[in-house]
Amino acid sequence: MDCSIDCSKFKGVIPPVVIPLTKEKTLDLDAFTNTINRMINAGVDGLFFLGSSGEVAFLTDAQRYHILMEAVAIVNGRVPVMAGIIDMETLRVVDQAKRASSFGVDALVATAPFYALGGPKETERHFRAIREYTDLPLFAYDLPVCVHTKLDPTMLVRLGRDGVLQGVKDSSGDDVNFRWLCLQNEDAGHPLRLFTGHEVVVDGAYLSGADGSVPGLANLVPAKYVEQWRAYQAGDWEKVREIQDYCARLMYLTRYVKATVGFGAGVGAFKTALWQMGVFNSNQMREPVQALEGEDVAHIVEILKRANLMDADAPIRE
Amino acid sequence: MDCSIDCSKFKGVIPPVVIPLTKEKTLDLDAFTNTINRMINAGVDGLFFLGSSGEVAFLTDAQRYHILMEAVAIVNGRVPVMAGIIDMETLRVVDQAKRASSFGVDALVATAPFYALGGPKETERHFRAIREYTDLPLFAYDLPVCVHTKLDPTMLVRLGRDGVLQGVKDSSGDDVNFRWLCLQNEDAGHPLRLFTGHEVVVDGAYLSGADGSVPGLANLVPAKYVEQWRAYQAGDWEKVREIQDYCARLMYLTRYVKATVGFGAGVGAFKTALWQMGVFNSNQMREPVQALEGEDVAHIVEILKRANLMDADAPIRE
Amino acid sequence: MDCSIDCSKFKGVIPPVVIPLTKEKTLDLDAFTNTINRMINAGVDGLFFLGSSGEVAFLTDAQRYHILMEAVAIVNGRVPVMAGIIDMETLRVVDQAKRASSFGVDALVATAPFYALGGPKETERHFRAIREYTDLPLFAYDLPVCVHTKLDPTMLVRLGRDGVLQGVKDSSGDDVNFRWLCLQNEDAGHPLRLFTGHEVVVDGAYLSGADGSVPGLANLVPAKYVEQWRAYQAGDWEKVREIQDYCARLMYLTRYVKATVGFGAGVGAFKTALWQMGVFNSNQMREPVQALEGEDVAHIVEILKRANLMDADAPIRE
Amino acid sequence: MDCSIDCSKFKGVIPPVVIPLTKEKTLDLDAFTNTINRMINAGVDGLFFLGSSGEVAFLTDAQRYHILMEAVAIVNGRVPVMAGIIDMETLRVVDQAKRASSFGVDALVATAPFYALGGPKETERHFRAIREYTDLPLFAYDLPVCVHTKLDPTMLVRLGRDGVLQGVKDSSGDDVNFRWLCLQNEDAGHPLRLFTGHEVVVDGAYLSGADGSVPGLANLVPAKYVEQWRAYQAGDWEKVREIQDYCARLMYLTRYVKATVGFGAGVGAFKTALWQMGVFNSNQMREPVQALEGEDVAHIVEILKRANLMDADAPIRE
Repeated sequence: MDCSIDCSKFKGVIPPVVIPLTKEKTLDLDAFTNTINRMINAGVDGLFFLGSSGEVAFLTDAQRYHILMEAVAIVNGRVPVMAGIIDMETLRVVDQAKRASSFGVDALVATAPFYALGGPKETERHFRAIREYTDLPLFAYDLPVCVHTKLDPTMLVRLGRDGVLQGVKDSSGDDVNFRWLCLQNEDAGHPLRLFTGHEVVVDGAYLSGADGSVPGLANLVPAKYVEQWRAYQAGDWEKVREIQDYCARLMYLTRYVKATVGFGAGVGAFKTALWQMGVFNSNQMREPVQALEGEDVAHIVEILKRANLMDADAPIRE
Repeated sequence: MDCSIDCSKFKGVIPPVVIPLTKEKTLDLDAFTNTINRMINAGVDGLFFLGSSGEVAFLTDAQRYHILMEAVAIVNGRVPVMAGIIDMETLRVVDQAKRASSFGVDALVATAPFYALGGPKETERHFRAIREYTDLPLFAYDLPVCVHTKLDPTMLVRLGRDGVLQGVKDSSGDDVNFRWLCLQNEDAGHPLRLFTGHEVVVDGAYLSGADGSVPGLANLVPAKYVEQWRAYQAGDWEKVREIQDYCARLMYLTRYVKATVGFGAGVGAFKTALWQMGVFNSNQMREPVQALEGEDVAHIVEILKRANLMDADAPIRE
Repeated sequence: MDCSIDCSKFKGVIPPVVIPLTKEKTLDLDAFTNTINRMINAGVDGLFFLGSSGEVAFLTDAQRYHILMEAVAIVNGRVPVMAGIIDMETLRVVDQAKRASSFGVDALVATAPFYALGGPKETERHFRAIREYTDLPLFAYDLPVCVHTKLDPTMLVRLGRDGVLQGVKDSSGDDVNFRWLCLQNEDAGHPLRLFTGHEVVVDGAYLSGADGSVPGLANLVPAKYVEQWRAYQAGDWEKVREIQDYCARLMYLTRYVKATVGFGAGVGAFKTALWQMGVFNSNQMREPVQALEGEDVAHIVEILKRANLMDADAPIRE
Repeated sequence: MDCSIDCSKFKGVIPPVVIPLTKEKTLDLDAFTNTINRMINAGVDGLFFLGSSGEVAFLTDAQRYHILMEAVAIVNGRVPVMAGIIDMETLRVVDQAKRASSFGVDALVATAPFYALGGPKETERHFRAIREYTDLPLFAYDLPVCVHTKLDPTMLVRLGRDGVLQGVKDSSGDDVNFRWLCLQNEDAGHPLRLFTGHEVVVDGAYLSGADGSVPGLANLVPAKYVEQWRAYQAGDWEKVREIQDYCARLMYLTRYVKATVGFGAGVGAFKTALWQMGVFNSNQMREPVQALEGEDVAHIVEILKRANLMDADAPIRE
């Protein structure tokens, strides 16, 4: 295995796809097709399925691969497809890697091992062991809020140089280490494609040298993030920043949820917004999370109206 | 579903079974049979498979159920068998529950949901949702060090009274909340069977009112923990305490490992000890964890000799 | 400095004294005298001032030493007096040590350094440096919930053997490490006097080999903890346990506070109980914490009545 | 107290001053004068004394106010002086506020309360209570790594609108919340002056709308941060970014320290660099922290040479 894996196509805006459900909590295939096409038509550079926002932790394996099969069919080669292979420790992740690969995805995305306690030796060995079982581009998903391990930039660049990793999706919230990761990657010849997962500060990540972003909020406003990426490519920082301010304010919809916290508030708010905007047919969630209701929905609608994503006099959908 | 699920048989010492591997990292069936029989012959009251010590996070589903199938066959009804159904969120755990149940186990053990962030509402709903899919006794596994949620005693007793849970394995390291759990459970009519997972302070848990223990160290010295349980039943606290001091000192074998931290040091030391004691044929670990070597092995041997678990002049096995 | 510092008098029950305030938030000297005499008359073996429960973090230096001056005068040699010298890093703690020493206290109690980040080297050097400035017995206060460093048993015993420390007040909530601390201390010739700060599980700490306890709840029920200590000395474990169950249930008064969390709920509940029991004249707190009110007070009164610490028909004091 | 406190002079680059010590660990007044003048001559917009980098936690009160007295005299009105009033809880902080004010400083900087556990009510009351005792501009210091509380943007802006706070020094490492803080502050009429404390990503903070920065690294390269600020004012983002890359690479000197972690590695590396660059006469630290030595010094020198801050053939100072 070496650096020869081509990953030049991974750049720009690659939203993590939020999954629409019917009221009966099954995949809503119409809405799924709709949301995918809407993002591709807006100009996104790729799509990421089975990430945290894609409710990967909540899906049985059968449900995961049903989604992946449909996703690959709908996308149909128009943009690269990345697939999360999220599981606890190495052998389980390898199992997911094999299975995801069989659906024809373009890249795999794996976190550090979680559940069992370990140290840096186990983390590095984990990625090397996964590489032994796949020829696909492999991205490390730096997500300490879920897996309770922060990936070290020096280790990541070493894995990049050794051809183990081809990129990183950084959702660590650690902008200092992300800057160092960008610089160390640059000094090593740019073996890794570096993406930020923080939709609120994508502009700062671009300033740090990111190759792109994976913004959950792009499910709502894909055209905004595409426009921001293009402004960045053109060196128009004032526009980059202005779009970011718009998106950062829109993100308030996740901040004041009263019914719950965490995933149910964050992705719950995204689903609720997509439902109210008419992209989804419901804001249904998977067990044990419950869909937002009442004043939480009303508050989200208010923010959507302020952002001109709903008409000022549109009624709340029920 | 109601409280009528009989769980009177769950009490006393129920070791979480450590898994022996061959040098090729496959299940060592001879050693597995050996260690199970050794514990049953020592008088343990049950066995717990696919817990954290049973490397559940490191096993593919195929490996998990291979182990469970063999375990049920070897135990052959001599003691109750508990099975971990460890996975990220509710639907995945339900999948594991269905599969484990099909092997004829006597009880299921589930943690709080992990990976995705949630709050107390999601935790409680999680256990209630699992109950909808199984008639087996269900134990909550309180393990914040792995799942990053501490289970609230008041919620646990409520779930006990509602027939959702029949017991708790407490590995939280929070002895204050364990005392409160015992008292609240008592005041509610003892709907839950309460076990401590902390082999170093089982005596304190008995004093708090525990119904038994799930000590990983009992893989090494099952007779000690059985003797301690019987001394407790007889009210002989000085003996309970004296045996505990012996076991607490033996547990030093996990404390000074130099090669790594976490699971590789803890269960790694158990496997190394069982290997050196002749119960296992190797101290092999699963990816990404590596087996202990060199001075770590030598130090463990030294502690085993001090505890009279190896002859003073026995050589180190290699 | 060597091991010759005599600390044989430190054993048994040494409550951390909760401070009564007037409505104007000044020291209520009558109530202070009252609560001290009440505890000494109940048979406690010492008193600890300026600990966390003694609101040390909330007091200016002037207020700290006013309290210490009055405390030494009121106690008047009837029992040993321990004084907290709580501050951020070494030089500030040494300053507090010098000042506290000038009031004629019998021992000093210091935490690990806090605020600035450090490692084990700094922690060990910290205690050694304090020792260079005082001849009084010095106790380490293991309180990770406040200072975010857990003290390592091996380091503590080394500092004991070197005459730096004469004891430990363990409020770490880590009963496994407390057991190891007791065993390692025993094996080193018992250089340290070991106290638990967890009023809910003092019995488990005695079983582990503690030399005594520092229970905040003993401000309410000093006679109970004294009786428990004497039962332990007499080997009557069933009585030790029974008293513990009583105290653990009484401690519920800190668990369901609605107005706030942390110190305001814990010490706030103690002050409210002492006020309702007639030992204090108010439940006033120091800035920025506010006194408990309304339903929180009513709930505490209910628990006091259930514990026979207030008459069933006594009205709520206002 | 109201919004009329003028804080228009607080903007731009305000380094937190690192303190030079003699070999005997006393204030090195010559080097202190030298480093202050060097930064003022480079064009900094203010100086911040007694912050975390200014070893405030390690100083007795006498040492703190000796430093502040000398600092005010040396600065002599050339730039505004901010002073940290760092202590555990409200009354102690008020004491520090009164004392610092008497030296003629231009603004005070306070953290959330620490040591005792509390919640958002106590945090907000804390700042309001401090305001009752001072007329000086008051900045909140958001430093969860030290005080274990993250300040909520909504609360901060409310305190700004109410005239309690005039600014924030954000060292939280949470760039998402910093963006929201900037936007909410803007929407409220900009009552707060917002500074970032993260020298590695100042450019991202400027993009987010920061009014300035408090970079510890500016003790080494004040002219770089001044040049960056001026480039930002001129809208030259490529230059802002290029300078940031230089500074981010220079910051590697804190990353690979072997002797210790935390403050001793971070500020220890700054002092070592300033010593090797000839600005300081030693790299002495305060108890319990020890000065860096040997290979750690050599590695720092190597980075300084790579950054053209030392001649390539300059020897290591000893």
